[in-house]
Amino acid sequence: MRIHKQSVPFESRTQIDFIDITQSIRDIVRDSSIRQGHVTIFVPHTTMGIVINHNEPLLLQDFMRILYKVAPVDDHYAHDLFEIRKERPSDGRSNGHSHCKALLIGSSETILVERGDLILSPLQSVFAIEFDGARKRDVIVQVMGI
Amino acid sequence: MRIHKQSVPFESRTQIDFIDITQSIRDIVRDSSIRQGHVTIFVPHTTMGIVINHNEPLLLQDFMRILYKVAPVDDHYAHDLFEIRKERPSDGRSNGHSHCKALLIGSSETILVERGDLILSPLQSVFAIEFDGARKRDVIVQVMGI
Amino acid sequence: MRIHKQSVPFESRTQIDFIDITQSIRDIVRDSSIRQGHVTIFVPHTTMGIVINHNEPLLLQDFMRILYKVAPVDDHYAHDLFEIRKERPSDGRSNGHSHCKALLIGSSETILVERGDLILSPLQSVFAIEFDGARKRDVIVQVMGI
Repeated sequence: MRIHKQSVPFESRTQIDFIDITQSIRDIVRDSSIRQGHVTIFVPHTTMGIVINHNEPLLLQDFMRILYKVAPVDDHYAHDLFEIRKERPSDGRSNGHSHCKALLIGSSETILVERGDLILSPLQSVFAIEFDGARKRDVIVQVMGI
Repeated sequence: MRIHKQSVPFESRTQIDFIDITQSIRDIVRDSSIRQGHVTIFVPHTTMGIVINHNEPLLLQDFMRILYKVAPVDDHYAHDLFEIRKERPSDGRSNGHSHCKALLIGSSETILVERGDLILSPLQSVFAIEFDGARKRDVIVQVMGI
Repeated sequence: MRIHKQSVPFESRTQIDFIDITQSIRDIVRDSSIRQGHVTIFVPHTTMGIVINHNEPLLLQDFMRILYKVAPVDDHYAHDLFEIRKERPSDGRSNGHSHCKALLIGSSETILVERGDLILSPLQSVFAIEFDGARKRDVIVQVMGI
């Protein structure tokens, strides 16, 4: 059994940004020379999530609108009351809504690998979603298999 | 280490359909002869999701109602504006709401395996959820372990 | 390849309770002596979920409020109509809202392991979330790797 791990760095450009990392993951699987197994994609940040869905620009607008309905940016979040937060100094970003969106999306996804490539249907893309951009970020990709 | 992969094909019958695939996954684990490890269940479709919860018919109604509240079918989705979509011809299904529901549920789940069987409590069932039925669909099940 | 599995038992104290199990998972990874691989955390209960996010008390209030907005406890759930439920006797807890919250969060998460420790950023904690407390519960943690 072999394990191969690599980071995918990127720069988000807008407050909410869907970064299509499908090709980067395919490249990492190819580099790993692992033919059969699975890939775990993990987000080492608390205002990001991983989603596998259709990369269609209008649909991404729908996704943002749905997440806005549940956790609107123009609402009051206790997390943003810096005066009463008791932990070490925050970085001062009012990003309560970003954490809430990340809560609904989740921090990891697993994709299967066969014949050295991802098992994805043609309409599936893998997105790293930033909910508190613009920032330099990364996701971690691990291939495990034979 | 061994890896065993198999598809679970099924036919959804209603627009939103919860398909209980628990027994199919148990059978695949048994066929794999893998005694210890984990099973990854992956949905190769963009309007489906995987959920592990209680197979109680009235509860499934609650699930549909909650998802309807967040992404109602009778709302306007940019994805359904076929006149302005710039990609290759769509299949013409107004399924923006289905993609949004899938976004909230996620495309994969992992279940642990011990003594050749799933570690599930008696009330847990594994559902493949179709949000854009009725259609012929499948999920992919991979067992990895020893 | 080696596999190590252990339970993390705990007692939830409030109806909705975020239990930080990060240290327990780190300990299990250390006990496993596995240096490289991944950890799967699985919830063997239908009213619980796993989330990786920031352990900041005010943010946890935001999380509860957002989930309340989608699945309020003071709403009507078909699952709680014990008079018309057709399955075997329920335990009589009106927990339709708890199942709905669990639906949105999901039953498993995967975290990567390197040099015998979790790959988590300093602000990431792993939470087992109980949505139908207070009860004695547990989550199952499996480390797989080399």
